[in-house]
Amino acid sequence: MLKAFQKQISEHFSILDEERFLLACSGGVDSMVLAALCARANLKFAMAHCNFRLRGTESDADEDLVRKTASKYKVDFYITHFDTVGYVNKNKVSVQMAARELRYTWFTQIMDENTLGALVTAHHADDNLETFLINLSRGTGIEGLTGIPPKNGNIYRPLLSFSREQIEAYARTERIEWREDASNAETKYLRNRIRHQIVPELKKLNPTFLENFKKTQEHLSGTAAFLNATIEKLKTSLFVNNNGVVTISIADLLELHPLKTVLYELFKEFGFTAWDDINALLTASSGKEVRSKTHRLVKDRDTLLLAEIKESARNIYAINVPQKRIDRPITLLFDDVSEIDETSGNVLYVDKETLKYPLTVRKWQKGDYFYPLGMQGKKKLSKYFKDEKVDIIAKDDQWLLFSGNDLVWVIGRRGDDRFKVNAHTKQIVKIIFNK
Amino acid sequence: MLKAFQKQISEHFSILDEERFLLACSGGVDSMVLAALCARANLKFAMAHCNFRLRGTESDADEDLVRKTASKYKVDFYITHFDTVGYVNKNKVSVQMAARELRYTWFTQIMDENTLGALVTAHHADDNLETFLINLSRGTGIEGLTGIPPKNGNIYRPLLSFSREQIEAYARTERIEWREDASNAETKYLRNRIRHQIVPELKKLNPTFLENFKKTQEHLSGTAAFLNATIEKLKTSLFVNNNGVVTISIADLLELHPLKTVLYELFKEFGFTAWDDINALLTASSGKEVRSKTHRLVKDRDTLLLAEIKESARNIYAINVPQKRIDRPITLLFDDVSEIDETSGNVLYVDKETLKYPLTVRKWQKGDYFYPLGMQGKKKLSKYFKDEKVDIIAKDDQWLLFSGNDLVWVIGRRGDDRFKVNAHTKQIVKIIFNK
Repeated sequence: MLKAFQKQISEHFSILDEERFLLACSGGVDSMVLAALCARANLKFAMAHCNFRLRGTESDADEDLVRKTASKYKVDFYITHFDTVGYVNKNKVSVQMAARELRYTWFTQIMDENTLGALVTAHHADDNLETFLINLSRGTGIEGLTGIPPKNGNIYRPLLSFSREQIEAYARTERIEWREDASNAETKYLRNRIRHQIVPELKKLNPTFLENFKKTQEHLSGTAAFLNATIEKLKTSLFVNNNGVVTISIADLLELHPLKTVLYELFKEFGFTAWDDINALLTASSGKEVRSKTHRLVKDRDTLLLAEIKESARNIYAINVPQKRIDRPITLLFDDVSEIDETSGNVLYVDKETLKYPLTVRKWQKGDYFYPLGMQGKKKLSKYFKDEKVDIIAKDDQWLLFSGNDLVWVIGRRGDDRFKVNAHTKQIVKIIFNK
Repeated sequence: MLKAFQKQISEHFSILDEERFLLACSGGVDSMVLAALCARANLKFAMAHCNFRLRGTESDADEDLVRKTASKYKVDFYITHFDTVGYVNKNKVSVQMAARELRYTWFTQIMDENTLGALVTAHHADDNLETFLINLSRGTGIEGLTGIPPKNGNIYRPLLSFSREQIEAYARTERIEWREDASNAETKYLRNRIRHQIVPELKKLNPTFLENFKKTQEHLSGTAAFLNATIEKLKTSLFVNNNGVVTISIADLLELHPLKTVLYELFKEFGFTAWDDINALLTASSGKEVRSKTHRLVKDRDTLLLAEIKESARNIYAINVPQKRIDRPITLLFDDVSEIDETSGNVLYVDKETLKYPLTVRKWQKGDYFYPLGMQGKKKLSKYFKDEKVDIIAKDDQWLLFSGNDLVWVIGRRGDDRFKVNAHTKQIVKIIFNK
């Protein structure tokens, strides 16, 4: 296997022959065999081990083995201990996701600090087949069937052409010490079933099954990359961005086929899951929307509007006593001035005596009305927005300043007549909206 | 199962409730259960059976069972016998391909003659999973993983939501008679291994495996359809068709990513298989080409030329004695005329006495030369083509007329000075190239 490994390196991973790299080593058979191969091929590398502290003394024994091995091969050894459970609780991610994020962040840091040009991991051909089958059992799309690539950025996987069988055989004949991999229980159960019951049968279907499977995944990866490039081009032509709100013509969307697939590909990165609802949105009435955890997609006449979800519409911010400045939820400056000078949409002058504390800042609600500055009589805010052609997202982003129950300012747009400066005004307050 | 079947019909196949359809029935458990379900659901249908005569008396017993069943259900029965082996030998296709082509051609004919609105087949969920795994074992791309759709044109598959297990259980409890399906030996061996060793284990991975798999295939089908639509659009913008020769700008191709995938998708329908060679063609020297059985792709300066392969370049067609017309390899008319009238590139007037039989018609060969009409001296044909900016495909498509070893006419382009009509000419021959 050493010769086959060296051939792989010289033909497909020549950078590992030229530069010192970091070898990620869990202590499992795959990475211990990889370390042995790298040492015997006289490659220049350092070893890194992450102790995720998920299995008590077992985790520590893994760490000890990797340390001992690095010392045997006379290579630098980097170790870190993670509070994985703490990270899981804090970031609301799965243990697997936490371990991955912690690990790769730390690897990158070590590589930067020690000018190591590449990261090498021990993924092999069966890993890709197992992941393919796990994803298949759960239901997936093309992205779940493509597998880990041999090169991805500065991460290299020189064992990806080798099977688990070859790796384990090498460990046995070369008496390489290793420890059972840690992995979460469900995946371990699934992987074991796949490893022992399914994969051997698949390999019996065709003597070159694993080789054919590798070609299939290369093919699918190419298709997925072409798909992504196509979707990115499509986004460039469809998505019109105005101050963080993306406008998309529904007529343009309807020209694409198959619509369901296109909608999924266009919007999946924004965390949406309710695809039937998004489909229905195209023919829904104006104002209907679908939300993900981070984004909203709103039907607005003949367009869809896509925007990040910001401040909750229900929050009310009180200004209990007069002050010079507030910064939450937006920045407003309050100045006592003797005359009206600068005028702009972002500045409002009011008669100080008319303001009744606490002032409040909030989003609009159904039924809100005001007396638009310079106009006779009152007007519903919804009517005002409509007349001003304010779109749904901008409407929901609009902050309002109230004095008691009276609207003082549609902030940045229009003041209220009841608070205006007049001949009887004793003290003028200049309010500045600092965008 | 009858209720679940009726629900499928009313929710997803309502056309089968409304129109009389043709049910394709092999006599196997799937189609015999389908026939029973259709009869019990009081649907209006006729039954068709193809006897492929591949298994002697076994094939005839299948036919008898289906005939008996049609009579029991009191529905029309259509039967045909195919010379499958003859078709295989004649058309150089596999037995499976032959059976498919024969079957669907015949079904379409029966449907037309008897105004049957739809064809119904008994494919079920395990069929798709098995085909998926067979393709996977051989190596495939997304098109090999998408499966048969529930509706495709006027073909409907109302059992596609049911598993083999459900269908066989129904056959047992309802005592439905059926016979073992015929299929070719290799596929049968693979399908049996998959059916008995692999699929049961896959289903153990996840209780909803088959349901998830169905969603995966729907997802992949959507992706494949989007991919196809994208490639068709790309072809429209990249392929410039001039009289059957397609010109493709290499600079435009090089902007596409990933190139290998795009080249495969653009050219696969023309039967190419040497993808590495096609990749290399982009940077090869002018004149290099890659051929499929039906097409050639030629590098010509900064473009690729794609054309159907026509007449072999080596064939020589002899005209042994004077005649009025030839039609192979092209149509030429020979007329004795008394004067030169119509002139065009497709007409040449020659001095009859200069022609020496046999005349021959062939493609150009290295070293060919002629004395261009109206010019002094001789010229190499290759130089003539270059000066006239004749592209590589057009050059290879160019027919030449010879008298003995002397070139008479670069047909449709330029005559030879040695054969021209002059003051001493006794008889003029008018040669017309009839495109």
